[in-house]
Amino acid sequence: MTIHYPDGRSYRDDGQRQGESRSVDYGKRGMTLEEDLNVTNRYYLETDRAVIYKKPTPIQIARVDYPRRSAAKITEAYFRKASTTDYNGVYRGKYIDFEAKETTQPTSIPLKNFHSHQLAHMRRIKRHGGIGFIIVRFTRGGSVYLLDADYLDAAWTEGTNGGRKSIPLSLFQKHGYPIETHFAPRLDYLTAVDAAYF
Amino acid sequence: MTIHYPDGRSYRDDGQRQGESRSVDYGKRGMTLEEDLNVTNRYYLETDRAVIYKKPTPIQIARVDYPRRSAAKITEAYFRKASTTDYNGVYRGKYIDFEAKETTQPTSIPLKNFHSHQLAHMRRIKRHGGIGFIIVRFTRGGSVYLLDADYLDAAWTEGTNGGRKSIPLSLFQKHGYPIETHFAPRLDYLTAVDAAYF
Repeated sequence: MTIHYPDGRSYRDDGQRQGESRSVDYGKRGMTLEEDLNVTNRYYLETDRAVIYKKPTPIQIARVDYPRRSAAKITEAYFRKASTTDYNGVYRGKYIDFEAKETTQPTSIPLKNFHSHQLAHMRRIKRHGGIGFIIVRFTRGGSVYLLDADYLDAAWTEGTNGGRKSIPLSLFQKHGYPIETHFAPRLDYLTAVDAAYF
Repeated sequence: MTIHYPDGRSYRDDGQRQGESRSVDYGKRGMTLEEDLNVTNRYYLETDRAVIYKKPTPIQIARVDYPRRSAAKITEAYFRKASTTDYNGVYRGKYIDFEAKETTQPTSIPLKNFHSHQLAHMRRIKRHGGIGFIIVRFTRGGSVYLLDADYLDAAWTEGTNGGRKSIPLSLFQKHGYPIETHFAPRLDYLTAVDAAYF
């Protein structure tokens, strides 16, 4: 369920803020990347292919009322920045961890879509034997790619050392794995995971 | 940071509700199992032993104000029941997933501390090659155990078929792995994981 507020912003059932990377309408479906991934993960769960969830948005609670003992009501709270990536779970015996972003830029995704603590998190994941990657949708062309976290890491290092501040689409085309859109699973990223890691 | 409210209930920095299983003072430390695990996970992270986090508490947002564009303020929200376990991450290349509970009962933990969807989640985790267990603290005696999810599963099945509605301490003593308390790591559960799974 999506709740729409007078100012036009919307909040969804899963408590997820539609912030920073904004809701983008990319055709008939009109679904954000996050919505597509939620539907996909539910499908994977129901078909017993993997157990992967989006983590709840971390919220800083400042005040709570207790109108009734059984229903605490939060009356003041704020969104906090996540210190990890948004998605994790288990697939084919491996720990899976990823961050998903969409960009309206036609030929690259700006590095500012990611945060240094997310980079640090993905480095740790890989060091401990997990699978870490990003999923990026280029909303104009409609293409979606899986790219191993090492490439994000390399681009990040380059960017912080005075190099380019974005990852070009061409790098995704060369080193990434395209993710196909179907009816179900909507965004079949595990097939790309199969190709990339197994 | 812990925020105390006039009615004596308290909320912590991580947005976690101290609900159902209540904050229990079990001696000088006065730390809940959750607090001990958070400290422990931070230690594991800093010493690069594992990457394990507690998931944020899922919150259902009903209303948000925008006093300033940069600081959205949630003015009405409710706690939701988690559909998975509280903790997951990666350790020695394996996906790790667990739920932690404490009980004031001296010789058993009631099954009502767990939920059917958590059971279903743990079954899935194990089926996909992850490591799934529970950590239980018996606050009276102060003992803490790791118990593989299969034993919870068996006790659950027994309980729903008219059998006993709790897991006896003796089962933890026989099939579980004791978790020792230190200064750091506070609750060294990964050493129990080593003994149980590696």
